[in-house]
Amino acid sequence: MSIRAAIVGPTGYSGLHAIQLLLRHPSASVTYLASRRDEPVDIRTIFPQLIGRLADPVANCRPIDAAAIAKAADVALLCLPHGTAMQVAPKLLAAGLRIIDLSADYRLGDAARYEQVYATPHEDTKNLAGAVYGLTEFFRKKLGDAALVANPGCYPTCAALAIVPLIERQLASPHRIIVNAASGVTGAGRAPTPGLHYAEQNESFYPYGTIGGHRHQPEIEMAIEDVTGRAADALFVPHLLPIDQGILETIYLEPTASHVKEDDLFEALETSYADEPFVRVKTELPNVKHVRGTNFCDVTVRLARNRIVVFAALDNMIKGASGQAVQNMNVMFGQEETAGLL
Amino acid sequence: MSIRAAIVGPTGYSGLHAIQLLLRHPSASVTYLASRRDEPVDIRTIFPQLIGRLADPVANCRPIDAAAIAKAADVALLCLPHGTAMQVAPKLLAAGLRIIDLSADYRLGDAARYEQVYATPHEDTKNLAGAVYGLTEFFRKKLGDAALVANPGCYPTCAALAIVPLIERQLASPHRIIVNAASGVTGAGRAPTPGLHYAEQNESFYPYGTIGGHRHQPEIEMAIEDVTGRAADALFVPHLLPIDQGILETIYLEPTASHVKEDDLFEALETSYADEPFVRVKTELPNVKHVRGTNFCDVTVRLARNRIVVFAALDNMIKGASGQAVQNMNVMFGQEETAGLL
Amino acid sequence: MSIRAAIVGPTGYSGLHAIQLLLRHPSASVTYLASRRDEPVDIRTIFPQLIGRLADPVANCRPIDAAAIAKAADVALLCLPHGTAMQVAPKLLAAGLRIIDLSADYRLGDAARYEQVYATPHEDTKNLAGAVYGLTEFFRKKLGDAALVANPGCYPTCAALAIVPLIERQLASPHRIIVNAASGVTGAGRAPTPGLHYAEQNESFYPYGTIGGHRHQPEIEMAIEDVTGRAADALFVPHLLPIDQGILETIYLEPTASHVKEDDLFEALETSYADEPFVRVKTELPNVKHVRGTNFCDVTVRLARNRIVVFAALDNMIKGASGQAVQNMNVMFGQEETAGLL
Amino acid sequence: MSIRAAIVGPTGYSGLHAIQLLLRHPSASVTYLASRRDEPVDIRTIFPQLIGRLADPVANCRPIDAAAIAKAADVALLCLPHGTAMQVAPKLLAAGLRIIDLSADYRLGDAARYEQVYATPHEDTKNLAGAVYGLTEFFRKKLGDAALVANPGCYPTCAALAIVPLIERQLASPHRIIVNAASGVTGAGRAPTPGLHYAEQNESFYPYGTIGGHRHQPEIEMAIEDVTGRAADALFVPHLLPIDQGILETIYLEPTASHVKEDDLFEALETSYADEPFVRVKTELPNVKHVRGTNFCDVTVRLARNRIVVFAALDNMIKGASGQAVQNMNVMFGQEETAGLL
Repeated sequence: MSIRAAIVGPTGYSGLHAIQLLLRHPSASVTYLASRRDEPVDIRTIFPQLIGRLADPVANCRPIDAAAIAKAADVALLCLPHGTAMQVAPKLLAAGLRIIDLSADYRLGDAARYEQVYATPHEDTKNLAGAVYGLTEFFRKKLGDAALVANPGCYPTCAALAIVPLIERQLASPHRIIVNAASGVTGAGRAPTPGLHYAEQNESFYPYGTIGGHRHQPEIEMAIEDVTGRAADALFVPHLLPIDQGILETIYLEPTASHVKEDDLFEALETSYADEPFVRVKTELPNVKHVRGTNFCDVTVRLARNRIVVFAALDNMIKGASGQAVQNMNVMFGQEETAGLL
Repeated sequence: MSIRAAIVGPTGYSGLHAIQLLLRHPSASVTYLASRRDEPVDIRTIFPQLIGRLADPVANCRPIDAAAIAKAADVALLCLPHGTAMQVAPKLLAAGLRIIDLSADYRLGDAARYEQVYATPHEDTKNLAGAVYGLTEFFRKKLGDAALVANPGCYPTCAALAIVPLIERQLASPHRIIVNAASGVTGAGRAPTPGLHYAEQNESFYPYGTIGGHRHQPEIEMAIEDVTGRAADALFVPHLLPIDQGILETIYLEPTASHVKEDDLFEALETSYADEPFVRVKTELPNVKHVRGTNFCDVTVRLARNRIVVFAALDNMIKGASGQAVQNMNVMFGQEETAGLL
Repeated sequence: MSIRAAIVGPTGYSGLHAIQLLLRHPSASVTYLASRRDEPVDIRTIFPQLIGRLADPVANCRPIDAAAIAKAADVALLCLPHGTAMQVAPKLLAAGLRIIDLSADYRLGDAARYEQVYATPHEDTKNLAGAVYGLTEFFRKKLGDAALVANPGCYPTCAALAIVPLIERQLASPHRIIVNAASGVTGAGRAPTPGLHYAEQNESFYPYGTIGGHRHQPEIEMAIEDVTGRAADALFVPHLLPIDQGILETIYLEPTASHVKEDDLFEALETSYADEPFVRVKTELPNVKHVRGTNFCDVTVRLARNRIVVFAALDNMIKGASGQAVQNMNVMFGQEETAGLL
Repeated sequence: MSIRAAIVGPTGYSGLHAIQLLLRHPSASVTYLASRRDEPVDIRTIFPQLIGRLADPVANCRPIDAAAIAKAADVALLCLPHGTAMQVAPKLLAAGLRIIDLSADYRLGDAARYEQVYATPHEDTKNLAGAVYGLTEFFRKKLGDAALVANPGCYPTCAALAIVPLIERQLASPHRIIVNAASGVTGAGRAPTPGLHYAEQNESFYPYGTIGGHRHQPEIEMAIEDVTGRAADALFVPHLLPIDQGILETIYLEPTASHVKEDDLFEALETSYADEPFVRVKTELPNVKHVRGTNFCDVTVRLARNRIVVFAALDNMIKGASGQAVQNMNVMFGQEETAGLL
């Protein structure tokens, strides 16, 4: 069986990467592109990369018509902004589609937290409750039956994969975590802004946003809590890199005891990820270039000055977005988890 | 005597570079910033580079008030878009200011050519006739008395410096010239556009515009004609580089005779520029990085396959704009031509 | 049937890309890596990108043992420097392997020309004569039976695809061609040099080499001649871009007659490539970013100032090297030509 | 009086920047270049940027001859590797020159600490004791009489300027400091290495070195201790950015008490630096691009999740090396401290 996938909101970078991954997938294909735009748009005029790869009629974005999408596809990948996804998802679910939502709308689990973080009421509390948080490595078992999967944020994916095993084994405290992160610019979207104008962004490096107030901070805490069962508090400080793709997180944790050794930390990571195809525990320090274009998350750890320092790298467009979406899709539909991703 | 300079339209990249050059100038200073914006704007909020370097009250852009500018300054550098400069210049001239206009408005010499190229009537034909084309190396003698100097375009400066000596000595034909050019993105201005969005421009390289129809093509031809007295025709093909600053032109010329030798070509360049402080004739191939931040134009030449190939590099923001403006200003006011530029 | 491919000389960038393409290929796989190095080397220590994707024992490079390779593989992709490939190829051919040679050793057709261009005698004239020049679009029919395919150079692939249809239809002259080219730095290999040191290459752009004397110049002329049957002369001028991957060529041709129109040029390109999966004839100007990571060559044409200007872009690592090798491999083994490449 | 400066070891990037700054200095000039190389070398062949700016005979590097240098210069800027500087300095001092050493040799104050950090005995303990640590903002008063100034490291300059005022006012603890730093590649020198090869470094970002073991870690601790009189412990974690110049440090401190407010932190910084020409305390988050090519250090602070987060940016080649050297030189010779630096 080949999975038929619709991309809803394909005109952003996560849409482009979802399409590209599905074009190479041995047992899935893009069968429908749906856009909120009023006029029909050929995705190949936005992304000339796709000329010769994506054919008519699929390449022509059609309206978001739940019945039509449900007829053409088994699953919809929502690449919409937060706030919009929760308006679209209920109709698609009602039409029988399974959904992988790449926005933040179904990630935070409850409506109160969502409203607090995103400053807008949640409009689909009914489906919110049943959404599965799609950090595949930790919630794989829930995916088989999931109708609605909330694909995790790029920064939280990286942080949770790096931190969880160390807290689970009680080697690191869940408190006073510092996540110092840096991301490539595709994470900021396709809309041109003065700050992302080439002549400004090139040869630059800077922190951004409200320090301690980024929307991924509560998602990071929630992800850790949901897997380890322990309340976590993390300070998240993002920076922007003059590169296209890639996230590197340098995470500072406090050891739970003075007898914790670096070997213990490695063992925790290696044991946790021994069977994981997409988490590479390494002794070398990671580099965003070595995960570029892949669904891998590279992780290593050091103990220095009585601090645990975990380094993790992934591609914000792949494991941090569309790649993890395809990974989730594979599990949801009983395919080989790595299909189309190695 | 210290030259007092006003910058009119300082919020673009050429304005920034003009300010920075003048801050380092031993005998000139910025005394007034004038902007078309309705609200007052502190230039340091636009260019944080200038904090601690440019003080109140100068840093606060004031309206374009000819009398006030004339009181505070001896010369105005117009860093306005074409079409706007010719609306502002007459008032400033009438108020007694000398002007160096970095826009295209006074470059093409006659109103008919301007209208043809810029598709809009010239609104200041009176001053157009007397404007001096400020390619310093060739029109230095006219600058001493000039009230209005038309600062040349970045591409034409580079092309004319590379080509003129070879045509003057009748080594190269003025016909069938090909100027293959590549520029850094500051040449495209500060306004964010989809094409100049970092994630699009990074790791890119492409030709742009109407091939054979760029506005610098007639300016290149005019510059050659005005210096050599010979009608020229040139095909100009620009490309955009993923770098901040720099232009490289690879220029293909036809030798006038089969006995022309590479040595003759070098001799023509070296003789022409022997006393020029800002043209470096080299045997090595030039690199935009080696002229970055400088007012130099590096030139070399090769003879291959019965073609003359001239290579020239300059910084589009310096020799291609604000640096040449300061060079012209120095000459206009009887200062050392290199003051503030080496 | 699945093709078993050996990579000989996998520690350079073309080796890396060949491996990555084959990992995604639905009906081919890497079964052997062979290196000239004395000590065994795990390719994953050189390219950490491959960890988790390439498994033991294949990931461990073994010596170049013809019998062992022939046992493990059907075809060998030679990613060796020129001069070395011709020492290795005869043994592999004798052992029964088919060969796709990515070096220049078998491209130029006859030993005299090779010696003239590469300043060293050809050591395998026996096989040189039978080698097929693997510019797939033009020599597809010869590939089915070929034992030894000379994979074309990156610049000549781009130039020939752009030029050939216009000469074939007698719209453009084969004489006085100018190929102004720019390439990303992977084309210069993996060996660190002062000029390719990041702090030197970043924010740079420059021509390089002996103008008129680059080794790809005769290959370009040969490719045009072999397809069109007409002697060609081309001046080739390469530049280096501060990007990883991509070639853009801006090619100047002379029309054969004054009545040649831009429409005729488009028609020639479109007709020639109507059924080609990897040549995209476009009306828009091409951009190296839009072919990055793909096997496409994007081509468009303009007529301006009585010159034909053809623009062509490809990824020097894919269509310019390993991608075309896989394309050739697919044809040689009767697979779908696009397998693993879209 | 004009300061006559010799550059010893001018062939690295700090040498280049020292020359460029001195060329623009109104009351100092480069009078001698001295190199360890056996053959004479014209610095303009190494840095073509300097052609037309630096003339004979100065441009020709001469041997390190103390008497000759002392005759030509008042001060020597040592741009040598650590280990070499301490071999050269005694002779230059004995010949009557004042010295600003940009290496690490005289920074750490005592020989035991030096040996521990640099794993080699100190060879000039006599002069080590009297060397002044040239972090201008904190040790300005000692510079007037100093014969030997140890110019601080790039990372420690940035860290100390960011941290010291907060510890001095007892707002932040000197313990458990985390300095998360990122630097442009010029910090790694001019020698080509595989990791700094353009095709590897471009589009990359990674931590490097022994985490907790970088040589700048003890220098950071020493700088804090020397100014505040309080023992400090800091974990220093450096990363490499794909840019030419710039350091950004994100520093995590623990407040000394729960009643510490963000306003207190700003006040401490603003008061400390109110009269400093080169430290810009800002409310906005800093960006390495805004300090590029300048001698500024931009600093801001946030209080979040019961952590103090200080952000500081400077240009590693200017305030982190040659600019601070010129700043020190100005003070040593009684010039305006900002001369040649604004």
